[in-house]
Amino acid sequence: MQKPKKIVVIGGGTGAYVVLYGLKKYPVSLSAIITMTDSGGSTGKLRDQYGVLPPGDIRQALVALSDSEPIWRELFLYRFTSGDFAGHNFGNLFLTVLEKITGSFEKSIQLANTILKTHGQVIPVTLQKAHLNAQLVDGTILKTEALIDKKTKRKPIKNIFLNHPVKVNPQALLALRNADLIILSPGDLYTSILPVLMFKEIKQNYQRSSAKKVMILNLMNKLGQTDNFKATDFVSIYEQTLGPDCFNFVLVNNKTIDPKILKVYAKFKETQVFNNLKTTNKLKILQAGLIHQTPVRPKPGDKLIRSLLRHDSHKLAEFIFKQIVQKL
Amino acid sequence: MQKPKKIVVIGGGTGAYVVLYGLKKYPVSLSAIITMTDSGGSTGKLRDQYGVLPPGDIRQALVALSDSEPIWRELFLYRFTSGDFAGHNFGNLFLTVLEKITGSFEKSIQLANTILKTHGQVIPVTLQKAHLNAQLVDGTILKTEALIDKKTKRKPIKNIFLNHPVKVNPQALLALRNADLIILSPGDLYTSILPVLMFKEIKQNYQRSSAKKVMILNLMNKLGQTDNFKATDFVSIYEQTLGPDCFNFVLVNNKTIDPKILKVYAKFKETQVFNNLKTTNKLKILQAGLIHQTPVRPKPGDKLIRSLLRHDSHKLAEFIFKQIVQKL
Repeated sequence: MQKPKKIVVIGGGTGAYVVLYGLKKYPVSLSAIITMTDSGGSTGKLRDQYGVLPPGDIRQALVALSDSEPIWRELFLYRFTSGDFAGHNFGNLFLTVLEKITGSFEKSIQLANTILKTHGQVIPVTLQKAHLNAQLVDGTILKTEALIDKKTKRKPIKNIFLNHPVKVNPQALLALRNADLIILSPGDLYTSILPVLMFKEIKQNYQRSSAKKVMILNLMNKLGQTDNFKATDFVSIYEQTLGPDCFNFVLVNNKTIDPKILKVYAKFKETQVFNNLKTTNKLKILQAGLIHQTPVRPKPGDKLIRSLLRHDSHKLAEFIFKQIVQKL
Repeated sequence: MQKPKKIVVIGGGTGAYVVLYGLKKYPVSLSAIITMTDSGGSTGKLRDQYGVLPPGDIRQALVALSDSEPIWRELFLYRFTSGDFAGHNFGNLFLTVLEKITGSFEKSIQLANTILKTHGQVIPVTLQKAHLNAQLVDGTILKTEALIDKKTKRKPIKNIFLNHPVKVNPQALLALRNADLIILSPGDLYTSILPVLMFKEIKQNYQRSSAKKVMILNLMNKLGQTDNFKATDFVSIYEQTLGPDCFNFVLVNNKTIDPKILKVYAKFKETQVFNNLKTTNKLKILQAGLIHQTPVRPKPGDKLIRSLLRHDSHKLAEFIFKQIVQKL
């Protein structure tokens, strides 16, 4: 039998979840390099009050990769809707307490792995604390991830940086060097994907890696981050960070989105990402129906307005496996 | 090889913990029938805010019986000392969330068992919600366990009852019927031990059980519950509930308690339980050094004034095993 291909998924939040959740069912070796600058919601409060590293994105990746009975995944995704813990997520609390007891975020991930029977490796991009900053084109600086993540009309983001230098996790570099395929998840460009890629050593190891590289194009733009972006705008931002020809493939949904859903997004001034990319000899644009048939409903306890529309984990994973992994 | 003897431990809190923690290392089959009326502290808040059954005493018994790596026991005993969760215990939260997800307290205990690798069975005396009431000799009624548990000078307690009838857990009755030895833990008479024994069916099954029965005499009296009680006062209260000759053995510490520790208790108007029991042909008084060499220090986050002085788990278990279990 062939050795399973090594896939590295980069990102955080729901985007990384969707990619990992689908791919774990295939005979591949999965690693996820996860953003570590979340500062909003449950995670933000836990950072502030207990001085821990941000658990939220890590917890989602762990659950995505879990092969455990559904109850353990439910436990890690459980969100309190009332009382002293309103808005908090139990998985975040779990990681917080383990970090407080062991003094090590890595150790707490390992322990969560044993309960969740994780099929793959979850790698925090750094094990040091930092806050994400963004500078807008008018010079304004937004000083936390929570502020950058806020959906609001504002000038475009010029660049992002950390409030102080932190060390990259060497496990992340090792994963990139050994990868056969690197996937940039869908997700918030400036708060989920670029906060991983912004590390100098991550960029270098990404560039030097002999892996094939694929970017999954977002379905919708996010107000205050990628207003009215087209596919070429995403590629252009990624090229500014990673250099020219930084992907071999871009994966694009070509299934029509329900106009009713688009109307809801339009209310929040959010538009569909228009695909204006064409295959060249350096970049192949792969198109397929990759979205859910039915809109995603918010769960009780969700305080944020979450995306109604998501990639379909199974369609995405099947397409990636058959059209990319099996041809590596 | 002989079949392991079936031991049932009755109680809650630290008293049951100490007995179970020591005995789990011996080749015996352990069950713990645990009180379900706690309404103070972290447990009380979780009951009020999330409508769950009281997790605190169950959690302590689970941890006592755990054969898991120390980190899981630490996790279940972890108490937040600051922030939004100050005073809450993580194990309590764990049971609370599992009960919310599964809709079943029994199922949540089973799931905690898998993580804690519990060596023995933890049986809530009831799976229905109720509050403990106490009537004092002057007619005053204290309407929650938390009030009864409060250390304060008051008239003696006349009797305890539940605010409404609830069904006893049939597992508890089964355990009593099959027992070779029944142990009444040390602990708070009116808030830990009698809230198990007060159920009519528990009394009947206790009385009819062919098991040997042992009561472990408390070291110190508790203000507002057993003020100035002597050993015979304990026996007399138990006989009021369970009928005459309700024990075969009473286990009494005969090691001198450090006068410095007694002084601390004296500040809170709490006295040593004076042993005025003598062996008769129906009741054997067993005496041994059963206390810790060093006082128990409160942990950070402990909001209650917890007992400085406890039975020593290992001495207690060794004595019970050698002097009682092996002679059954």
